[in-house]
Amino acid sequence: MKITALELATLLQAKLEGNPQTTVHKLAKIEESDAESFCFLANPKYYHYALTQPIGILLCNETLEYNAANVGAVLRVKEPYAAFQQLMELYAAMNKPNNLSGVSDKAFVADNASIGNNVSIDAFAYVGKGAKIGNNVVLHAQCYVGEKAVIGNDTVLYAGVKIYHECEIGSRCIIHSGAVIGSDGFGFAPQDDGTYKKIPQTGNVVVGNDVEIGANTCIDRAVIGSTRIGNGVKLDNLIQIAHNVELGDNTAIAAQAGISGSTRIGKNAMIGGQAGITGHLKIGDFVKVQAQAAVIHNIEDKKGISGAPAIDAREHYRQLAAIRQLPELLKKIHTLEKQLQDLKK
Amino acid sequence: MKITALELATLLQAKLEGNPQTTVHKLAKIEESDAESFCFLANPKYYHYALTQPIGILLCNETLEYNAANVGAVLRVKEPYAAFQQLMELYAAMNKPNNLSGVSDKAFVADNASIGNNVSIDAFAYVGKGAKIGNNVVLHAQCYVGEKAVIGNDTVLYAGVKIYHECEIGSRCIIHSGAVIGSDGFGFAPQDDGTYKKIPQTGNVVVGNDVEIGANTCIDRAVIGSTRIGNGVKLDNLIQIAHNVELGDNTAIAAQAGISGSTRIGKNAMIGGQAGITGHLKIGDFVKVQAQAAVIHNIEDKKGISGAPAIDAREHYRQLAAIRQLPELLKKIHTLEKQLQDLKK
Amino acid sequence: MKITALELATLLQAKLEGNPQTTVHKLAKIEESDAESFCFLANPKYYHYALTQPIGILLCNETLEYNAANVGAVLRVKEPYAAFQQLMELYAAMNKPNNLSGVSDKAFVADNASIGNNVSIDAFAYVGKGAKIGNNVVLHAQCYVGEKAVIGNDTVLYAGVKIYHECEIGSRCIIHSGAVIGSDGFGFAPQDDGTYKKIPQTGNVVVGNDVEIGANTCIDRAVIGSTRIGNGVKLDNLIQIAHNVELGDNTAIAAQAGISGSTRIGKNAMIGGQAGITGHLKIGDFVKVQAQAAVIHNIEDKKGISGAPAIDAREHYRQLAAIRQLPELLKKIHTLEKQLQDLKK
Repeated sequence: MKITALELATLLQAKLEGNPQTTVHKLAKIEESDAESFCFLANPKYYHYALTQPIGILLCNETLEYNAANVGAVLRVKEPYAAFQQLMELYAAMNKPNNLSGVSDKAFVADNASIGNNVSIDAFAYVGKGAKIGNNVVLHAQCYVGEKAVIGNDTVLYAGVKIYHECEIGSRCIIHSGAVIGSDGFGFAPQDDGTYKKIPQTGNVVVGNDVEIGANTCIDRAVIGSTRIGNGVKLDNLIQIAHNVELGDNTAIAAQAGISGSTRIGKNAMIGGQAGITGHLKIGDFVKVQAQAAVIHNIEDKKGISGAPAIDAREHYRQLAAIRQLPELLKKIHTLEKQLQDLKK
Repeated sequence: MKITALELATLLQAKLEGNPQTTVHKLAKIEESDAESFCFLANPKYYHYALTQPIGILLCNETLEYNAANVGAVLRVKEPYAAFQQLMELYAAMNKPNNLSGVSDKAFVADNASIGNNVSIDAFAYVGKGAKIGNNVVLHAQCYVGEKAVIGNDTVLYAGVKIYHECEIGSRCIIHSGAVIGSDGFGFAPQDDGTYKKIPQTGNVVVGNDVEIGANTCIDRAVIGSTRIGNGVKLDNLIQIAHNVELGDNTAIAAQAGISGSTRIGKNAMIGGQAGITGHLKIGDFVKVQAQAAVIHNIEDKKGISGAPAIDAREHYRQLAAIRQLPELLKKIHTLEKQLQDLKK
Repeated sequence: MKITALELATLLQAKLEGNPQTTVHKLAKIEESDAESFCFLANPKYYHYALTQPIGILLCNETLEYNAANVGAVLRVKEPYAAFQQLMELYAAMNKPNNLSGVSDKAFVADNASIGNNVSIDAFAYVGKGAKIGNNVVLHAQCYVGEKAVIGNDTVLYAGVKIYHECEIGSRCIIHSGAVIGSDGFGFAPQDDGTYKKIPQTGNVVVGNDVEIGANTCIDRAVIGSTRIGNGVKLDNLIQIAHNVELGDNTAIAAQAGISGSTRIGKNAMIGGQAGITGHLKIGDFVKVQAQAAVIHNIEDKKGISGAPAIDAREHYRQLAAIRQLPELLKKIHTLEKQLQDLKK
């Protein structure tokens, strides 16, 4: 990507200062910029860099001061952050990796799999018997789509994603490398001799539309029925979703959190990193669970909770404050005991 | 799978009511059933659904009431749960994914690898030099079995499992996608200049019989000797087992737990999700470690522990109860101090 | 590998006792040794085994007592641990798995990828368009190197590693199976209707030289610029490194820890297992973070911290000690209240 200040100004309907032919070929953080970088400034904390850093083209508000000796061109707009977002999307579209096309002759596609229009399937990807691949789907190298699994339109599976048999992925989803969808739930019946007998996991996983699933995240298939991931859910990396869990629409979960079996989480919940939620709970809509919390009770809508075991977040902060005073408190009580002893005498 | 009420009644030796030709083709939870579903009822909590839900075939006890207008056929047995378990296994057997047969011409099998009878090796799976694959083994697509690794009879590796060189997996094991067995242990000798020198990890991993290993779980090879996983061990997803750990028979570990180097865990222990156990410890037989616990001491047989750092579980609950009273306690002590002050005057 | 006591003595310049023709073919821990094992003793705790265990060849200090009836030969050196390290490296070199050579005809290498000298690329590995592979690189089976990604000289990627487009890996790195480098950072802009809009992740990951990355560890690409992993960094398994994180040289992180977005960690820090560090923090050089700690503030150089939320480690131990006294304390205060009541009367 090479683009001039004049082209960008036209694109963004920005006011242009400096040399309209200034050319940039990369995005950079302002603190790492050079004369060939495009930068933007929206946060006043970083404004001072405009006075010292070499910058190719700078996108900023209508009044920011800069050092003209160091800056090739300046684009002024009312809302630099919104303009920047617009550009980021453009940039991502132009730099889209692997503009794949068609089905690689090094892929495996079962004879009776159903393949939509304009599908890309890269080398060493695998599409099992009876699987259905929607239109415009991209399966990167080494992906696995098991028997009778379904992939919705416009979904992208990055290299090495594994979708087990009979699982269903919605439209416009993005699934990152190493994610495993549909592995057996952890279900074993203890036997009298101390061994375990496997409980067959006969269900599947159903993932809604517009879902993003992070690298190496695992979602287990249901023992019966379906583990369900709602529309618009966003899952970070290395998350564990156990069998028969249900996640409501637009719920977001940060990395390394784990949800145990049969727990149902409402819509628009936010679960912090490394949090754990035990099984068979009902977590309401718009609930916020802090990082590393250990949730062991049902949670009502809109509650914020933290701690292990997790309680109301404000109550938890009060407890933490009290614990900080605890070593001091021990001394105080010792003093009280002595004073009381003296008084008695 | 399509099956009639008559066929099921014969199979389960059940008493049949309703239309013997009622046909079902799927299992469903009773709250999600329709006229083509097979359902079972063993939990009285759910009995009421038999009065309201449309159901194809219902498996239940000898006396349950149901709404004949909504239910195609009813199978009555003495123990519905046991009968259901029997059916689940049948169902799983009939719906077994990838009834693979033989070695795909898109797989790689080294010339001098030893391959048992009735083995299935799917596309893009890899069997290295000198590896030994037992009878009836299934290697799904994109599996990796390194040089001189050994896979026991009747073991199944799902898509993308990685077994490093020289590791040994027992018979009748199930290993899920993304699991990594035999990666190098985390061993580095600090040098005077602040860098680290790698300590070669010369050992391997030995996994017993009847072991299940979850998706994206990691088991590191030993620095010398073997990291050992006993018979009948069940590991959930995303677990970390460090080098030279030893797990006794029938120990079960929930998702995202981590066991540090050289720790030995006894038989039939249960380790909760996200728990961590530090290195070089001895954890006894039948020990129960609660979720998110941080274990830093040896634990005797049959103890239950929780907390971070982990202590006797009952003691931990006492501490948690005391902490809940702590903000109140601070006020109480303030009052005491004042009263004492007044008394002194 | 078969080697005699005489050969080993020459190699290590050791003093030889016993039969110089004693032959061993494996390394063993002293407690598991037999007459064909090579063992070493450096830790006095284990000295007693030299009196009871059958041992082929024993490497030890200049004075250790042993039972000549059980031991084939003894090699005496001043520093047995250093001599053993030397041998371990030799052993690892001799037992190197997959002495691969050349590019497998079952691999995929894009026409315009640049491939160095003496490169090994095994079956089902994938090298994308414009990727650059340095000299002596080993790509094991089923690896993925995306478009325009760069792999430095002498780096080894074990089976199934995924390197996304445009990411850069230094020289002499070791990356274990299932690691994902360059997946999208977790960035979404909340919309008025409760849905999220994806923020394009336009940056990459840059990994320095001499870095080791454990199995199934994830490092996300930057939203702009680079997520940076310094030289000599050692990452264990199942770690999460979010977008725009920077890790200083020689920092070591234990398994299942997670670092949130834009946090910068200094040089030679040590982060314990399952620890979590929130976003946008600055963690100093030589900082030690205990296992399971939850770091929510900036940390100065050389500090040791623990707890959730993490505080100075010594202060944390004081708090833990105080909490242990808490149930007792409640009784004490009750007694004080009563005594005070009595006095008032």
